[in-house]
Amino acid sequence: MKNDKILLSHGSGGRLTHELVETLFKKYFSNPILNTLDDSAELRLGYPGGPRLAFTTDSFVVNPIFFPGGDIGRLSVCGTVNDLAMKGAVPRWIAIAAIIEEGFELATLKKVVLSISKAAREAGVAVVTGDTKVVEKGKADRLFLTTSGLGIIEEGVNVSGKNARAGDEIIINGTIGDHGISVIAARNDFKFSSGLKSDCAPLNNLVKKMLAASKSINVLRDPTRGGLATTLNEIASSSGIGIIIEEKLIPLKNEVRAACGLLGFDPLYVANEGKLVAFAPGASAGKILKTMKSDKLGRTSAIIGKAVSSPKGVWLKTLSGTLRPLMMLEGEQLPRIC
Amino acid sequence: MKNDKILLSHGSGGRLTHELVETLFKKYFSNPILNTLDDSAELRLGYPGGPRLAFTTDSFVVNPIFFPGGDIGRLSVCGTVNDLAMKGAVPRWIAIAAIIEEGFELATLKKVVLSISKAAREAGVAVVTGDTKVVEKGKADRLFLTTSGLGIIEEGVNVSGKNARAGDEIIINGTIGDHGISVIAARNDFKFSSGLKSDCAPLNNLVKKMLAASKSINVLRDPTRGGLATTLNEIASSSGIGIIIEEKLIPLKNEVRAACGLLGFDPLYVANEGKLVAFAPGASAGKILKTMKSDKLGRTSAIIGKAVSSPKGVWLKTLSGTLRPLMMLEGEQLPRIC
Repeated sequence: MKNDKILLSHGSGGRLTHELVETLFKKYFSNPILNTLDDSAELRLGYPGGPRLAFTTDSFVVNPIFFPGGDIGRLSVCGTVNDLAMKGAVPRWIAIAAIIEEGFELATLKKVVLSISKAAREAGVAVVTGDTKVVEKGKADRLFLTTSGLGIIEEGVNVSGKNARAGDEIIINGTIGDHGISVIAARNDFKFSSGLKSDCAPLNNLVKKMLAASKSINVLRDPTRGGLATTLNEIASSSGIGIIIEEKLIPLKNEVRAACGLLGFDPLYVANEGKLVAFAPGASAGKILKTMKSDKLGRTSAIIGKAVSSPKGVWLKTLSGTLRPLMMLEGEQLPRIC
Repeated sequence: MKNDKILLSHGSGGRLTHELVETLFKKYFSNPILNTLDDSAELRLGYPGGPRLAFTTDSFVVNPIFFPGGDIGRLSVCGTVNDLAMKGAVPRWIAIAAIIEEGFELATLKKVVLSISKAAREAGVAVVTGDTKVVEKGKADRLFLTTSGLGIIEEGVNVSGKNARAGDEIIINGTIGDHGISVIAARNDFKFSSGLKSDCAPLNNLVKKMLAASKSINVLRDPTRGGLATTLNEIASSSGIGIIIEEKLIPLKNEVRAACGLLGFDPLYVANEGKLVAFAPGASAGKILKTMKSDKLGRTSAIIGKAVSSPKGVWLKTLSGTLRPLMMLEGEQLPRIC
């Protein structure tokens, strides 16, 4: 690594995060389960035919802790539930660890707890264990939550970032960038995005319907930190395929397009918290898309592109018809977005 | 709650932590699994005879992050492995989420990662998933880790804080207070405790031997934050019994006794990270004690007291022979000890 200190970009979900994972975590913790680098680890209980579990953890340091469409509590449940759902698992149990800054208002903590409770009910998961640590004033920024989750992967489901195949259609369940722009607007008290809300939502019920429509889904992944472009790069790299998406097919709200224009952001790199991309063979993609559109979290679902055997890497067919390479997020666009 | 803000004492593991758990977390997340308030949640996979899992999470905010006998990495593995072992589970998989302050040295992060890796090997667990978040300089104190763990509870094992029975003997695997005094000495560069080390260690192999010696162990719990006195209060309250321990039987290093004298601490309230208390019927206690003494983490094991039907609460028979009530930790003795 060229840097000798941790930069904000190491937490962006982009290139430096991946470098850290490869050169440090994967190197020293290496094992076949970790090495898949999926959103959840897939565990098989140690006997033939034993159940498969999905296990995941995420810390949440979003600033501010309340934003249009959500808060750190709702986010911490949805983020973890979604990581389980992206393995095709049925989320069941979550654990929440809080690191709280001394002086944090108990009334605000109660609001967060109620929000966690509501989101957990919505997702159908139980909070089964937890932990609380308090650090001195100035040693943390109000409240950090770490949520871990456990789900059950049913037989016949085989979803992984390494399972994309050339020919797969790529489906997204709606507009991109809503979460990132909502948080940045709340942080800076921007007025331009009035009415825009984070898409923060548990996706497990949508995924359940999709898998009921077709078990042939190869990949599910939620484009959070680093946005759609970074997520597609992870999938292309894990699966050894190329990806071509079409700009004109990507659902995008006018407010997000306008805000990105003003701020100099590319919406393809802005975080989502209620979006997923699914890769599925052409034969089943239509049926899956129809199912998605019938769900309240998938009304504006669309097929946005295709997996190809070549060229490798991720490519955007722009509105003008040219092919532009889409790399992983470089640097840090929006720190502490989740 | 009388206070309207979070105090350091809310993270002490003592009375205010319990008040927060009861009035907020248990109240709004309530479910039969959470409500046992054991060190790990016990989950049963949803079919008759399905395996039982233990699931736990803990955040680690220890200051300083390196101390004699350990560091935040080793602590985060041992703390979580021990919480699983305290349900009688065989720890299998852990997940680690890091919140890192911008500017943290990569070389130090690597040291912590190597320490995690070593402790995980020692405990026989695999790091299967993780997460990294970075916050701006000044918004966290160097490095916080949250470690979640998953283990398998074998048939016939039934260990819980609510299973203590009057007549049970209470066994501890060695000297108390070593961890707390080591950390406080490192933090303040005290010289009085030279040679003293934290007892930070994974206890799962010791527990495995103990359960092999006798499945009749009713309670296992590690006296971390809040110390032995607080842990015994939790058990007495969960099981509805009384506890009498004898001061003269409690293993205590001279350095810890001396440091506690100087600092005005009661060693019964100082944190341990490689200690457990076991409750077992008199008939099997001798065999369990013998097994413990044969393990390197149990050389100075001792029976320190007994569960009784009355008086309720926790009592210390002092060196002078009087009975003194031992309450839960009030306030905060040593912030950020784990």
